[in-house]
Amino acid sequence: MQQRNIRLVIAYDGTNFCGWQRQRNGPTIQEALEKTLGIITQETVQIHGAGRTDAGVHALGMVAHFTTTATMPASAFVKGPNSMLPKDICILDAVDVPADFHARFSAQGKTYRYDFFTGAIQPPTERLYRTHFPCSFDPNRLHPSLDLLMGTHDFSSFEAVGSRDRTLTTGRMAVRTLFQAQCLVDPAHPEHFSFRFAGDGFLRYMVRNLVGTLLWVGTDRLSTEQFQDILAAKNRERAAPTAPACGLFLEKVHYEES
Amino acid sequence: MQQRNIRLVIAYDGTNFCGWQRQRNGPTIQEALEKTLGIITQETVQIHGAGRTDAGVHALGMVAHFTTTATMPASAFVKGPNSMLPKDICILDAVDVPADFHARFSAQGKTYRYDFFTGAIQPPTERLYRTHFPCSFDPNRLHPSLDLLMGTHDFSSFEAVGSRDRTLTTGRMAVRTLFQAQCLVDPAHPEHFSFRFAGDGFLRYMVRNLVGTLLWVGTDRLSTEQFQDILAAKNRERAAPTAPACGLFLEKVHYEES
Repeated sequence: MQQRNIRLVIAYDGTNFCGWQRQRNGPTIQEALEKTLGIITQETVQIHGAGRTDAGVHALGMVAHFTTTATMPASAFVKGPNSMLPKDICILDAVDVPADFHARFSAQGKTYRYDFFTGAIQPPTERLYRTHFPCSFDPNRLHPSLDLLMGTHDFSSFEAVGSRDRTLTTGRMAVRTLFQAQCLVDPAHPEHFSFRFAGDGFLRYMVRNLVGTLLWVGTDRLSTEQFQDILAAKNRERAAPTAPACGLFLEKVHYEES
Repeated sequence: MQQRNIRLVIAYDGTNFCGWQRQRNGPTIQEALEKTLGIITQETVQIHGAGRTDAGVHALGMVAHFTTTATMPASAFVKGPNSMLPKDICILDAVDVPADFHARFSAQGKTYRYDFFTGAIQPPTERLYRTHFPCSFDPNRLHPSLDLLMGTHDFSSFEAVGSRDRTLTTGRMAVRTLFQAQCLVDPAHPEHFSFRFAGDGFLRYMVRNLVGTLLWVGTDRLSTEQFQDILAAKNRERAAPTAPACGLFLEKVHYEES
């Protein structure tokens, strides 16, 4: 039987999951997908994601791959699983890819979006997908700091606490390159604003730590110079608290051909 | 002790409620508000809403009033209750109003919005607040039918099944006046489109029945003439099925001064 390699594009509402990666503490997206695809293929399926998202983080275009000897057309890995998966997980696309495609190692980058609501009282229908930040916030104050983030930097100041030791042990560096670092106000809804970051890779909590610290710049609690100092310090203790999970969306994983 | 009349503006996520009106079958918005305001005022509170929303329908600006002899400033009916209410209900505003203000009888009209997603597969993060309608849909085909709806009509064809008998018994007519009947595509998200209806009053299920039937016009299953015939027939059996609750938002209740 021929071994196939299937690439999936997946969207999920992370609200009720303990993140992407399979674990004992509660339901995960990986576990739900592996279970459902196991039923469809009648094989034990192991999914490899392009990365992990943390508990409560959403995805519009996570990418993963799995190998199988099942012979159905790749499109059968969309409709069939979607009818069985919990409603907060959805497979958007499934295609056969070459054997050397690996969702994580072949990825050239990712795009994340982080959504806020700045009004005094947030409508409950937005609470699961936008962080409430009821402060006078000037996105224009952020542009110099966002410009500073573009390009290649050691992002240790924005890495999850505890990751530093692992980085030192494994030799894995905290250097990453950002291609896009934006703050956009929705012209139709001035109380809605978003950050968007695209880069070749992201450290754990990096987007949420960047966003948390940029909020301090946008509310005049930090100057651009202080933000620059924090980036240069390579020390997580200098940056602001991590922004909540619910505003964060993994929008896209980038590959050579896409 | 002086009797006060307090007007509230309320937003809620209807997903997990059996609608606005107190009932035995499950949790309702009215019940949650009465319970919380009862604790705040130390009185038995009875809330009068501007209308009822059905199970699963959301609100961005429901209006209600209640009377109390409690002496705290009206603003205390915002923050205090919000810290105790379930996260899917939120009081946006509370003000003292004259004794003759009645949320329902003083209302001059309401505005409803209905949101759709037309892409093939809906991102799970939209599933609770947009109805999925994966069809080729031409909003331009709808404009003549929407124009027909403007003004004063007998909307019996779009009233909930079973309401007709009650209408005949009580003599309450199905004549209503619409001030606004629109279909809008979000230019930034072409897969998002919305209906918006404003009128002096709405029959039960009227918006969802109008929307269900207008979808048939937008997908070429009905002509404008056939839509006109359905409106003129004053017969619910002629119109299309009721659209789901999750896409419907009560946006605003209109009063003389607002």
